[in-house]
Amino acid sequence: MTDPDSNNLVYHVDGELVPADEASVNVADRGFLYGDAAFETMRAYGGEVFAWEAHADRLQKTCSVLGLKHGLATDDLHGRIEETLAANDLSEAYVRLSITRGVQPGKLTPDETVDPTVVVIVKPLPRGGSDGQPVWDEPATLQTVKTKRVPDAAIPARAKTHNYLNGILARLELRVSDADEAIMVDTDGHVAEGATSNLFFVRDNALRTPSLDGPVLPGITRRVVLDIAEEEGIPVEEGQYTPDEIRNADEVFFTNSTWEIRPVDIVDGIRIGDDAGSDDSNDAGNDGNDDSNNETAGSTAAGPITTLLSRLFDARIDREYYD
Amino acid sequence: MTDPDSNNLVYHVDGELVPADEASVNVADRGFLYGDAAFETMRAYGGEVFAWEAHADRLQKTCSVLGLKHGLATDDLHGRIEETLAANDLSEAYVRLSITRGVQPGKLTPDETVDPTVVVIVKPLPRGGSDGQPVWDEPATLQTVKTKRVPDAAIPARAKTHNYLNGILARLELRVSDADEAIMVDTDGHVAEGATSNLFFVRDNALRTPSLDGPVLPGITRRVVLDIAEEEGIPVEEGQYTPDEIRNADEVFFTNSTWEIRPVDIVDGIRIGDDAGSDDSNDAGNDGNDDSNNETAGSTAAGPITTLLSRLFDARIDREYYD
Repeated sequence: MTDPDSNNLVYHVDGELVPADEASVNVADRGFLYGDAAFETMRAYGGEVFAWEAHADRLQKTCSVLGLKHGLATDDLHGRIEETLAANDLSEAYVRLSITRGVQPGKLTPDETVDPTVVVIVKPLPRGGSDGQPVWDEPATLQTVKTKRVPDAAIPARAKTHNYLNGILARLELRVSDADEAIMVDTDGHVAEGATSNLFFVRDNALRTPSLDGPVLPGITRRVVLDIAEEEGIPVEEGQYTPDEIRNADEVFFTNSTWEIRPVDIVDGIRIGDDAGSDDSNDAGNDGNDDSNNETAGSTAAGPITTLLSRLFDARIDREYYD
Repeated sequence: MTDPDSNNLVYHVDGELVPADEASVNVADRGFLYGDAAFETMRAYGGEVFAWEAHADRLQKTCSVLGLKHGLATDDLHGRIEETLAANDLSEAYVRLSITRGVQPGKLTPDETVDPTVVVIVKPLPRGGSDGQPVWDEPATLQTVKTKRVPDAAIPARAKTHNYLNGILARLELRVSDADEAIMVDTDGHVAEGATSNLFFVRDNALRTPSLDGPVLPGITRRVVLDIAEEEGIPVEEGQYTPDEIRNADEVFFTNSTWEIRPVDIVDGIRIGDDAGSDDSNDAGNDGNDDSNNETAGSTAAGPITTLLSRLFDARIDREYYD
């Protein structure tokens, strides 16, 4: 069985370009047996990987957590991605780079000596930047789920690995509400992140996001958005928040490499930015601005700060990859 | 790269018997991308899978946690294992059966419709029972590690899945002490289990093991050992314990399908059953018994209850698979 989305694509496996339907790993590969692998999800704009240095750095940090000494140079990995994009004649793409601990003798205990398996998967995406279009159709709905984020003491969240069942269990819970993304809280009840995204909200005109002190992946897009906000003079706070603070926010959005900045209109069945019942007098001005930014009457999906950050993000993509 | 242990073996992948070095899954298989797969590790004695019904039942429980409706009958799965054993002419074997959610369109959120990938891996093992020999050479050393067991609220421990990094991080910590297995505690500091084993200890002539109320895999061998102890009239307690209680135990052993019952002689650098410094007057009698059961002078590795349970376990294997 192969991926129905992979028609005519070519992937990079273990140093070779191979048709997607023949791209495989041995069943004894530790990436398959145990999810013993590091990965990065990236986006290519105009033929170049967005924020490659930041992704390469995080990948190295993941490998360091896993004690996975793959011995591959960053340029080698980058070269494999470029080869894969070129072989598919893709300049606008989703890119997934995985490094597994490969096949080793014995069972669970890893050997120090590693012959890694490197896999690059790509898929076409729409163009980015201000002339592009987002991969999502509409603002998202979020649902706080019961599945708790794995604590750092068990598996550090800064490691992005093939152990993704925690997020899958969270997404399975969304079958009831049909929400787009989960809000996952940590074992103390504080908001951590989405299943595959970082979460932001606006309250009292400040941009707020869960701090990396909790079990939160240091998202590359998260960092870019924080940098843009700081450059723009928007007050930024990284802290500890409850799901209730998200529900009562003026604006909510989340980020990842593929979605970029995706506004949220409903959290746990509550419309965001709807002032009914709110006791925060600062909201009045924001709501006025919200409406002016909305194409759907009555919806307050993309508030003013979300809209501003999205435009600045697109402008940065224009400047770095399309101009 | 293929498994150096797999010389001339044949595995079962997606309904076909294939040479081990060609046994592979597509890189888009969710078992590889996310560790989105259930598995069982089993042992075959005299050509038959030990406790197949119990393994099949636990596999189904794992799939239930994962919302993985594979649609395969238990007999079908059993048949694939039997075919694999027969194709390799193996009657004494390690058997690993995995069911992944297969390849699906989209990304992390699973589809309800599943075309599962089923993989059976086998390896030769020595004969079991009282005429057999254990797979391990000597009593084990244990080391309490800093990596905490993933809490049930994040990923239920009763699900045995391809997300095994938590155990791998625990094993990586053993590089310092060169211990054989980790003692993993939960986020409250109570002993949960080993990286791939259940833990037992004897204190005051009672057999004690962490209760399944904690993040503990319901091991098949664990259950068999508890049943044997109860049949033999040995007092059994399933409870919450600290690492200190393990260090001060009269006997310690751990269990899994491959190791069966493996005695432990050293925990966190402390020799088990060594009464020096102990304030428990009940130990005196036990220590006398310990010594009489030991082949290595000065070692108190396999205490009387561990030895008795091992003999009764072997006798059960003899009765069910070799007589």
